[in-house]
Amino acid sequence: MTDRAVTDRAVGARPGSDRAGSARAGSARAGSARAGSDRIVAAEVLVTSPGRNFVALKIVTADGLVGWGDATLNGRELAVAEYLREHVCPILLGRDPARIEDTWQYLYRGVYWRRGAVTMAAIGAVDLALWDIKGKAAGMPVSQLIGGAVRDRVLCYTHATGADTAALLDAVDATRARGFQAIRVQTGVPGLGAIYGVARDGAGYEPAGRGVGPVEETWDTDAYLRHVPGALAEVRAHVGPELALLHDAHHRLTPNQAARLAKALEPVELFWLEDVTPAENQEAFRLVRQHTVTPLAVGEIFNTIWDCKDLIQEQLIDFIRTTVVGAGGVTHLRRIADFAAVGQVRTGCHGATDLSPVTMGAALHFDTWVPNFGIQEYMRHTPETDAVFPHAYSFSQGLMQPGDAPGHGVDIDETLAAKYPYDPRQLPVARLEDGTMWNW
Amino acid sequence: MTDRAVTDRAVGARPGSDRAGSARAGSARAGSARAGSDRIVAAEVLVTSPGRNFVALKIVTADGLVGWGDATLNGRELAVAEYLREHVCPILLGRDPARIEDTWQYLYRGVYWRRGAVTMAAIGAVDLALWDIKGKAAGMPVSQLIGGAVRDRVLCYTHATGADTAALLDAVDATRARGFQAIRVQTGVPGLGAIYGVARDGAGYEPAGRGVGPVEETWDTDAYLRHVPGALAEVRAHVGPELALLHDAHHRLTPNQAARLAKALEPVELFWLEDVTPAENQEAFRLVRQHTVTPLAVGEIFNTIWDCKDLIQEQLIDFIRTTVVGAGGVTHLRRIADFAAVGQVRTGCHGATDLSPVTMGAALHFDTWVPNFGIQEYMRHTPETDAVFPHAYSFSQGLMQPGDAPGHGVDIDETLAAKYPYDPRQLPVARLEDGTMWNW
Amino acid sequence: MTDRAVTDRAVGARPGSDRAGSARAGSARAGSARAGSDRIVAAEVLVTSPGRNFVALKIVTADGLVGWGDATLNGRELAVAEYLREHVCPILLGRDPARIEDTWQYLYRGVYWRRGAVTMAAIGAVDLALWDIKGKAAGMPVSQLIGGAVRDRVLCYTHATGADTAALLDAVDATRARGFQAIRVQTGVPGLGAIYGVARDGAGYEPAGRGVGPVEETWDTDAYLRHVPGALAEVRAHVGPELALLHDAHHRLTPNQAARLAKALEPVELFWLEDVTPAENQEAFRLVRQHTVTPLAVGEIFNTIWDCKDLIQEQLIDFIRTTVVGAGGVTHLRRIADFAAVGQVRTGCHGATDLSPVTMGAALHFDTWVPNFGIQEYMRHTPETDAVFPHAYSFSQGLMQPGDAPGHGVDIDETLAAKYPYDPRQLPVARLEDGTMWNW
Amino acid sequence: MTDRAVTDRAVGARPGSDRAGSARAGSARAGSARAGSDRIVAAEVLVTSPGRNFVALKIVTADGLVGWGDATLNGRELAVAEYLREHVCPILLGRDPARIEDTWQYLYRGVYWRRGAVTMAAIGAVDLALWDIKGKAAGMPVSQLIGGAVRDRVLCYTHATGADTAALLDAVDATRARGFQAIRVQTGVPGLGAIYGVARDGAGYEPAGRGVGPVEETWDTDAYLRHVPGALAEVRAHVGPELALLHDAHHRLTPNQAARLAKALEPVELFWLEDVTPAENQEAFRLVRQHTVTPLAVGEIFNTIWDCKDLIQEQLIDFIRTTVVGAGGVTHLRRIADFAAVGQVRTGCHGATDLSPVTMGAALHFDTWVPNFGIQEYMRHTPETDAVFPHAYSFSQGLMQPGDAPGHGVDIDETLAAKYPYDPRQLPVARLEDGTMWNW
Repeated sequence: MTDRAVTDRAVGARPGSDRAGSARAGSARAGSARAGSDRIVAAEVLVTSPGRNFVALKIVTADGLVGWGDATLNGRELAVAEYLREHVCPILLGRDPARIEDTWQYLYRGVYWRRGAVTMAAIGAVDLALWDIKGKAAGMPVSQLIGGAVRDRVLCYTHATGADTAALLDAVDATRARGFQAIRVQTGVPGLGAIYGVARDGAGYEPAGRGVGPVEETWDTDAYLRHVPGALAEVRAHVGPELALLHDAHHRLTPNQAARLAKALEPVELFWLEDVTPAENQEAFRLVRQHTVTPLAVGEIFNTIWDCKDLIQEQLIDFIRTTVVGAGGVTHLRRIADFAAVGQVRTGCHGATDLSPVTMGAALHFDTWVPNFGIQEYMRHTPETDAVFPHAYSFSQGLMQPGDAPGHGVDIDETLAAKYPYDPRQLPVARLEDGTMWNW
Repeated sequence: MTDRAVTDRAVGARPGSDRAGSARAGSARAGSARAGSDRIVAAEVLVTSPGRNFVALKIVTADGLVGWGDATLNGRELAVAEYLREHVCPILLGRDPARIEDTWQYLYRGVYWRRGAVTMAAIGAVDLALWDIKGKAAGMPVSQLIGGAVRDRVLCYTHATGADTAALLDAVDATRARGFQAIRVQTGVPGLGAIYGVARDGAGYEPAGRGVGPVEETWDTDAYLRHVPGALAEVRAHVGPELALLHDAHHRLTPNQAARLAKALEPVELFWLEDVTPAENQEAFRLVRQHTVTPLAVGEIFNTIWDCKDLIQEQLIDFIRTTVVGAGGVTHLRRIADFAAVGQVRTGCHGATDLSPVTMGAALHFDTWVPNFGIQEYMRHTPETDAVFPHAYSFSQGLMQPGDAPGHGVDIDETLAAKYPYDPRQLPVARLEDGTMWNW
Repeated sequence: MTDRAVTDRAVGARPGSDRAGSARAGSARAGSARAGSDRIVAAEVLVTSPGRNFVALKIVTADGLVGWGDATLNGRELAVAEYLREHVCPILLGRDPARIEDTWQYLYRGVYWRRGAVTMAAIGAVDLALWDIKGKAAGMPVSQLIGGAVRDRVLCYTHATGADTAALLDAVDATRARGFQAIRVQTGVPGLGAIYGVARDGAGYEPAGRGVGPVEETWDTDAYLRHVPGALAEVRAHVGPELALLHDAHHRLTPNQAARLAKALEPVELFWLEDVTPAENQEAFRLVRQHTVTPLAVGEIFNTIWDCKDLIQEQLIDFIRTTVVGAGGVTHLRRIADFAAVGQVRTGCHGATDLSPVTMGAALHFDTWVPNFGIQEYMRHTPETDAVFPHAYSFSQGLMQPGDAPGHGVDIDETLAAKYPYDPRQLPVARLEDGTMWNW
Repeated sequence: MTDRAVTDRAVGARPGSDRAGSARAGSARAGSARAGSDRIVAAEVLVTSPGRNFVALKIVTADGLVGWGDATLNGRELAVAEYLREHVCPILLGRDPARIEDTWQYLYRGVYWRRGAVTMAAIGAVDLALWDIKGKAAGMPVSQLIGGAVRDRVLCYTHATGADTAALLDAVDATRARGFQAIRVQTGVPGLGAIYGVARDGAGYEPAGRGVGPVEETWDTDAYLRHVPGALAEVRAHVGPELALLHDAHHRLTPNQAARLAKALEPVELFWLEDVTPAENQEAFRLVRQHTVTPLAVGEIFNTIWDCKDLIQEQLIDFIRTTVVGAGGVTHLRRIADFAAVGQVRTGCHGATDLSPVTMGAALHFDTWVPNFGIQEYMRHTPETDAVFPHAYSFSQGLMQPGDAPGHGVDIDETLAAKYPYDPRQLPVARLEDGTMWNW
């Protein structure tokens, strides 16, 4: 599979291509969607694994501008890579890179089979690369293009985990020492083994496992519900009232269990409680909301505005966590954020290491602009990843800034990337003790 | 790309594999969901293009049973093929083929990124292949396993198209002469060129175009709305009151335009009016429904029950058109149909040539069982396709039957399939006269 | 009444019967729903009372397959027996046993007077017998036919009762010693005599009393509400946090009393609180739900999906307790469970001794398959009952398994059954202190 | 089966019986529900078939009063007979016949398995018999006891049917000639054979067929929808604007088809359109109601107030057609009518010949009292039936009156009844052309 590790097949430049002509011959509008001055001449997919797998899209224009997009879909990376390589890259050639909106609509409406994680990650990758190009063409960072920053630095949170409460308190202390003002705390549960969000060995938590099949974890909701309120209360007592604490229930609860947990956690005064119940059925959040004022966040697996429309319209959540790549790029995420603002819902972009630095760079530009910003998740990538993706963004004192580079400020060292071939991994799955598949 | 044309990489048998052991060591449940007697020993993806592209999944068990699934996603075929090949096939090995439900849940919940056309087509392919195997193991057609047929033959409709009304009437007559009792009529619109659903040359209509990029058609809703009611009224006058007439608006209208058209078409007494407006926002159908009693159908692009939950719950549609492969196989489509029955909504499975005969075979078994059956779409595959996919189902006098073979009754001639390598095609896109991307 | 004790009147085989001919003469569809290869040649009702009364339906096919269904309706047994014997058995003859869905629809729609406990128990008996036959025809257990097991063993709960708290704690300890991980606790109430769910003499609780008329118990809701929260809190303190505790309020409370009880029991962290208020009016649960996060269960007296549609759609319950026989068999219970899954509601099939081992066998097959399984009730039948109904299922360490026999795995020893003639019994009724009839 | 034809087993008088004593020993209330002066000493079930099958319940008191109830459930007669005979009659003995409300609650709440046609018909029979007794004890007709008549005669409608429109017009004329001011018109449909509501031979329409199994009719909704609006318009044109016309769609339509029909029939100005769609899901009527002002009637198959609660609360119907026996007697029907009045819904009791003259007598007493009376259905019984059931009620000039006899005014000639043994019949079932079971 070495041959997939780097830009494996450039869809070559086709100067002068104008495929639309035949279909719309005789149309009066002179190249309505094709009137820009520059043209896309290459679109290539790159898969690299400097510690974990990332998919990147590189778009090159006739003017020599290069834009990078992130197309990583954790555990399903090659499906997106193939989607782009075979079905999207060829039709990008010859298009005007400046017409971002038209390209977005072209790919979203043009696919016929809209929505879904694979499709939207592919569209998101194209969109990010085009905004990167437009920034470079204008000599402006992306935040400038979309309205300009309303803040220079953004609050971010990271994770502290412990197999037991003592270890968790130590991790929280260590995390505060790194300057974080907001920390997501996840705790081991007595009687359960590996569990979402809790590192097994004191190292950083990385759920995607190496090997042919997914790791199967055993889940017990009752054990979790018995343990978590007390553990988080201890954390709150330990850190005092000011530190922002977050917690992620990771889709494991039914709506009523979620209501029970959220109610039990009210004294902890969480910044948010995340992913309390699966959200395919947005109405599921009604029950939770009815019983508690604990702030609720959801959205890292959302792909379009349709996934959160009812949640926002009915005031069922407080934070929307959709990412710039998962939701089809800056173009669509901006719409989700604007729609969220109508309901006074704030953003809290997912920012785990399952997305490449390209997404982090773009997210930070988005974050500095978006009026209804809430918080940004931040997990440190491995040094290997940082080396493959040189970037302008930086972290300091619990805050991040995107840097001033034109575009989104994240580059890729293709030579270095080539040294890290694709390394199959999958996210774990969860089963109940009796074997029932559960939500991981 | 020839090397993709046939079963390109068998994920070999791994006898004795028991991946769960390591992950759940110490658990008391000894292979809870894996305790059956047979095992999957091979899972292979096959791409073939006997007239158009199809993706098939072949699952082989230790007992020598072979099951076939369809994984075709029109215009995005290779993304699904790669999804299966790289991310699904490896983890199927060693699993008990009889545990269909567990495998469905494993793939749906296990992917973390649920829903979406690519994901659900991949799951659907696995599900179809496993029901095929179970039928062969039991010596029963799939319809038997899911409850037994409540009808032996099912009503189906096909398409008649004409660039103008005269040509359309001729096409309708020719279609009736083939025995059809239900016909979907699509008409050219004065002033518009190529248009959805209308054959350009009297041959069968096949929207997916060969070549690098999608054909771009020009769309004018007003022209369409001015022309269609009269044209369809002429068809109704021509055929008399009994022939079932259907029409597909193919997502082109706003909700209020849809209401206007549906109301204008009431005298034509359509069997159904299809896809009147995009359904990402299910509430969009409320407005249509409020103004008209013309029966409404939608769903060929739906992938899960969540895509139609509100449509059904609020009685906004009359027919759900989701396919057995698009919605994750028999296992999930059954749930959609049962849910639809609660709202007295009937089925009308999409059955165009963008799906392989495997889907048609499975659909017909489903159709003969499902109590709230409405109609089945039927477009004749090319002779080349029929040769590659020998099948038990048949058409006669406007009705189809699945045949009595165990499983779903559709096989694949792998040697012949290998002669038709993948041939890139894409569905068209639509633009308004001014260049605006529109829904195709 | 001895002559009713066993198969009392076989509706003899009528080879070659084809009742449809006369009614639909001239129809083109030649026996559309009757074209299978096998035929039902006998359908007989058996009433036996090995400790308590059971009604069984035996269906025999021309191929010699025998299927058993349970038709027991506690305290109204003979009404169902007569319904089957006089109105259903005769019309089963000549039908294809494989067409389970058609037969279900035939009996449900065909009766005109749909729903209701008597009707649905009769339909359920036929459905169970037909799935038993299909399993035997395929050589597969019922769980295989409906999708395959997703778990091998299922969690079950039984009952512990005490006239006072000390006795209850003893009973709980004894029940744990039998291996149960989940226990429904019912307690006597000071000032009240006989009460639902509490054994009078340390023996197993069996509500149906022998004799001409129902026992009349006196009920006092206030006394109950004063006593139960404290008593259950003592149980929780006694057993520690892990044991799953359940409690059944048995329809005695108004919605607001139910809300009050459920809220008061929150510290006990029940697995569920059952039947808090009569559910003829499903909206009654809205008030309860609004005030508490105690998990709610209901449904043992439900007969169709219509009895729980709003409860599920509005997220008013957590567990649906409908049984395989009460709800018209596997065919309909599957629909209820799938509908419940849309609302993240889990199953908890009623499994008291008022249903025969046939229902328990079928329930366990259902339980091992159903993705949204919650728990299974289990009351041990008398040794006499077990002897009359030899079965493949078994209990061990708080878990049950259905066994591997084809069909549902429960047989009937007809010779032995004949030794236990029908023995009239009725469930008790409840009155308030002033004589007001109350919900038992 | 001859031995079932008449009072087949009197449950003998048991003077002084007081079964409750043991269960409520120590209770302060001295025989709270047993304090009346009279006692039930016999309760017997009678099955007779003077042209069609009827089930009657005879209750005799120690004072020598005799009350008759109707327990007929068309096509499932013996299930109700057995329900009463085995499970109800024995527990009536010794009860005070004056305590009607207590007995109603005793049977409704006491059965545990509430609702359903079999159960409620049994309760209805008891209730009717007790009201008959109370009337005789007071020397008053039932209407007097429940509040007194607000009208002396009540408007009724009967049926006119024709295989074609000419025959229908003749039938309408003949019906008017009999004095009817309101006529339900049902028409044959071109291309369909036997159809609900249309007599095949000019004789009275009687759907229940003789023979072992139900007649299977073929149904085609489209043919029906094409034909009926025109046919009914012809009837309206023929009779002029004043005659009240009714039509029964008999549950055959989906909600949207029902809306379409009701809308198309608006020019006919129906008195009502009946049973447009199955009502298990009461919300189904929302869609119909949204599209039309044609008055809607439903309810002949309803058994309790719960079956119409939403229909009335949401103003979805205009007439509630529940019968006195189907809904548990005068005691419960009165509650339904009162609830209906809250929504300005009027009554229109089902009164076909599938119910005995006992029900007709009771219905007419109810009708003369009920403030929100709408209309009463009236089908003439056969002379044989009239002879078996001598009755006080009468018809004249399109109006009916209950007569002045004490009680409900309907007696049974037991000697004559014995000459008509049970004669098995079943209602037809309906299938679509392809074999799909449909609503009859």
